[in-house]
Amino acid sequence: MSNVRVCVDVVGGDEKPQVVLDGIEAALAADPDIEVLAVGPAEIVNLFAAAHARVEALEAPDIIAMDDDPIRAVMTKRKSSIVLACRAIKKGNADAFFSAGSTGAMTAAATAYVTPFRYQAEGKKQPVRPCLTNALPNRAGGLTVLCDMGANPDVEVDDMVRFAQMGSAYARVVLGIEHPRVGLLANGTEDEKGSNFTKACFPAMKAAVPGFVGNCEGTDLTSGNFDVVVADGMSGNIALKATEGAAKFLLQELKGAFMASLGTKIAALLIKKQMREIKAKLSGDAKGGAILLGLRGVVLIGHGATSVEAVKNGTLAAAEAVRAGLVENVANSMDGIVL
Amino acid sequence: MSNVRVCVDVVGGDEKPQVVLDGIEAALAADPDIEVLAVGPAEIVNLFAAAHARVEALEAPDIIAMDDDPIRAVMTKRKSSIVLACRAIKKGNADAFFSAGSTGAMTAAATAYVTPFRYQAEGKKQPVRPCLTNALPNRAGGLTVLCDMGANPDVEVDDMVRFAQMGSAYARVVLGIEHPRVGLLANGTEDEKGSNFTKACFPAMKAAVPGFVGNCEGTDLTSGNFDVVVADGMSGNIALKATEGAAKFLLQELKGAFMASLGTKIAALLIKKQMREIKAKLSGDAKGGAILLGLRGVVLIGHGATSVEAVKNGTLAAAEAVRAGLVENVANSMDGIVL
Repeated sequence: MSNVRVCVDVVGGDEKPQVVLDGIEAALAADPDIEVLAVGPAEIVNLFAAAHARVEALEAPDIIAMDDDPIRAVMTKRKSSIVLACRAIKKGNADAFFSAGSTGAMTAAATAYVTPFRYQAEGKKQPVRPCLTNALPNRAGGLTVLCDMGANPDVEVDDMVRFAQMGSAYARVVLGIEHPRVGLLANGTEDEKGSNFTKACFPAMKAAVPGFVGNCEGTDLTSGNFDVVVADGMSGNIALKATEGAAKFLLQELKGAFMASLGTKIAALLIKKQMREIKAKLSGDAKGGAILLGLRGVVLIGHGATSVEAVKNGTLAAAEAVRAGLVENVANSMDGIVL
Repeated sequence: MSNVRVCVDVVGGDEKPQVVLDGIEAALAADPDIEVLAVGPAEIVNLFAAAHARVEALEAPDIIAMDDDPIRAVMTKRKSSIVLACRAIKKGNADAFFSAGSTGAMTAAATAYVTPFRYQAEGKKQPVRPCLTNALPNRAGGLTVLCDMGANPDVEVDDMVRFAQMGSAYARVVLGIEHPRVGLLANGTEDEKGSNFTKACFPAMKAAVPGFVGNCEGTDLTSGNFDVVVADGMSGNIALKATEGAAKFLLQELKGAFMASLGTKIAALLIKKQMREIKAKLSGDAKGGAILLGLRGVVLIGHGATSVEAVKNGTLAAAEAVRAGLVENVANSMDGIVL
């Protein structure tokens, strides 16, 4: 099939551009059918493109920093890597975009330039809210999709229904789960549990989301009882970060335990390989980043503290999403999308 | 000082009454200055009281099950252990109540019979919402107070301010933290982060909560950067359960890692003691249970899947809270309480 062209942000994230460049090289080596549009400062991307056959440069003099106000930054830094990359997708100069930059700025720029799907409501076409989505490892040995992970702190019932439909499409297309089991994140699994808001979402999701099982709770991010956990961006983000925090806490406790005595230090050596595997599983580097669903293009957001492995996998995952037709599949999974 | 009298629910929780009875015995042995009012079926509590000098029986023919509708159960099962225990506190027949029963039923019965503090609003006295509170181990080697953990899925800004004041009093009185650092649970630590609701809470908490630092995020349940994390019962419950789920997931992964080969099995033996300590730290048994703040009495709720150790520690913790004057301290820490 024809090449997929992924735009990669050389200055996205907290690490030096060299980390991103090394990640791009690794991705190019792993997949001969991708091309990369490297976006960033002229002196970096031009040199890199000159040295690599399948790389083209997109010069971006501005950088949006992690602590910039997202919407203001997107409006004023029109020549930033994030804005130019999103415009490149719109113009058809790239099929997908990967950056480890600010989630807020990525969401704002993608909404403005990659543009969301629209649905008919109140006599006019409204934009779909982009839904930040990723898959986390679970206790059943599989992956559980969490959406929204933080793009939309305040949402309406209809948004939650669309998040569920989009998350379900992601589970089908990206994870290959034929009939995803979808749960609504609440404070208990019983039907009557929840806040006034989730209680209003429940019947709407039951009516419009295939595979809707009912309420789930915080433990179900990792229980394996659900393939898709649906939440507003506030609850989803809190659940995700509480999970990350708990993993960090436990790994620190383990580190202390392994240092306790000569015997435990020997134990650490004996189980070193397995511990490394567990840490890799938890790090998220293997997946590369979270995807913004609901847009007319593939936009993947990596973790700010990125790595060569994460950039490589994020770039490859972006290309895979294009090949799998994720954008079309997501659009088709939602009710009432008007093109 | 005079004895503290703790009412303990013999039929609360998923375990057999014998687990609770063993826990009471262990608590009586550990603290010679407590008396226990054992509430439950006549044949169990009368026999137990006859055999123990510092135990009195309170016969309760009804049992509220975990899957009963909480409010309906409290209204119809007037002779249940939970209702009779809460009425015993009101009548002055017990200083505190410990049960591993249904959180919903405990909250409903305590609100009805132990009665919450009241504040003046709109020309009349309104009841304070009870706030479910506990302390979780953090990465700094201390404890972080989480409130509300799930008693109130829907709250107002004023409720959040009171939760913060109550949680702060708990941190001072129970954990001995002189100036607790209080955070508002949001989707990021920056001031401008949050949902419309938490954005409305921010200035109110800044104005009325001593030690208010600002927003915190899910990772801060365990980061040690905050002594008190304040949330509505929905977000707080999601954060708590996501943390529990992540710990469960990681412990399962470790179990698998330790079983991988002969070498890792030897590692498991060498680090057995430390792993047991980590599990004990995570289990919550050492704290006995979560406390309902905002009431005119000490009400402690244990984990449904309780243990002898948890019942012992819950009973002792309830007595300690009485001795420390937690109820009066919480009342004094809140603005505008009218007695």
